[in-house]
Amino acid sequence: MTNKGLLIIFSGPSGTGKGTVLKSYFANHQEAKLSVSATTRAPRLGEQNGREYYFISKEKFAEMKSHNELLESAEYCGNCYGTPRAPIESWLEQGFDVFLEIEVQGGAQVRRLEPDSVGIFILPPSVKTLGERLRGRGTESEEVVQSRLKAAKHEIEQAVNYDYAVVNDTVEKATAEIAEIIHAEKHKTSRNPALIERVLNYD
Amino acid sequence: MTNKGLLIIFSGPSGTGKGTVLKSYFANHQEAKLSVSATTRAPRLGEQNGREYYFISKEKFAEMKSHNELLESAEYCGNCYGTPRAPIESWLEQGFDVFLEIEVQGGAQVRRLEPDSVGIFILPPSVKTLGERLRGRGTESEEVVQSRLKAAKHEIEQAVNYDYAVVNDTVEKATAEIAEIIHAEKHKTSRNPALIERVLNYD
Repeated sequence: MTNKGLLIIFSGPSGTGKGTVLKSYFANHQEAKLSVSATTRAPRLGEQNGREYYFISKEKFAEMKSHNELLESAEYCGNCYGTPRAPIESWLEQGFDVFLEIEVQGGAQVRRLEPDSVGIFILPPSVKTLGERLRGRGTESEEVVQSRLKAAKHEIEQAVNYDYAVVNDTVEKATAEIAEIIHAEKHKTSRNPALIERVLNYD
Repeated sequence: MTNKGLLIIFSGPSGTGKGTVLKSYFANHQEAKLSVSATTRAPRLGEQNGREYYFISKEKFAEMKSHNELLESAEYCGNCYGTPRAPIESWLEQGFDVFLEIEVQGGAQVRRLEPDSVGIFILPPSVKTLGERLRGRGTESEEVVQSRLKAAKHEIEQAVNYDYAVVNDTVEKATAEIAEIIHAEKHKTSRNPALIERVLNYD
């Protein structure tokens, strides 16, 4: 009997290293999948349909939304973005844990629809560290850095709406902590209604 | 800043290996303590006050109970047993995780008073395995084994009232799972109200 996988809502401000942590996690966890968003924007050079995004038309997007086939959706710079429900449901049924890397508003939308999901928020060690990381990239002006830090503070204030908070001190530590959280969640009695029956009845 | 420790309500039917699992856990976790019960029964040979039990008079027990100094209490074979609140509170404040090894009725009493506690229920791989373990001891008649199995089934049905269920397949695996559960619980945002403030304000 395969248990259903976990849906993990994974958020944290830009520059916290979410992507690096996920990459490290996926390298050691074959049972985990990363949800792929749908978008109406055109693919950029090198992007593959179904890898970076599902690239779909505005008409298809509107249809999916009206048919309740998106777990969340948002508009950004004139393009629509959303999370298709079907591939996630299919993976969960097969026992895969599915990570949804998403900003906090989208995360809240998904949470309302999927109360069994697990919310993990990645925190920088401090906003100061976050500023140093953003400046360290050397690609952004100080004005942009300040604007990102302000946005980050707003996001961090939403961390209380997540089940767990993990500080990204080092990638290894953060990755190990995520693995522990997921293992622990799988031992919740509320997620194992069949276990007690099995222990009682198996001869 | 030391975070407060966790209070862990640890239950499971007799013969499931709770004691062995705890011994293995404590051997590697100096930050954990085992709660000691108070009793009005006389100490047996080799028992030390404050180690196996706090041995107290019936008058003292009644006084503690009336002063709300016991987290739970029960009478068994004419003797009173109870869990003193003060040593647990002191350990938790110092940051120790405190395990309360307790049967399900007592566990439910503590849970009502301490909603922040974490309930972990240890399951045998199956009731059949449990019967084999009890018979393997060679100290009990088949009648006693049957009576214990019946009691075990009643206890196992209460596992749903615990947060987590851990199957004791092997001591190593069960111990590791308990460690993961405790680490994960410590990352709950609800247990870290100061963390987000610290990330936002630390410069």
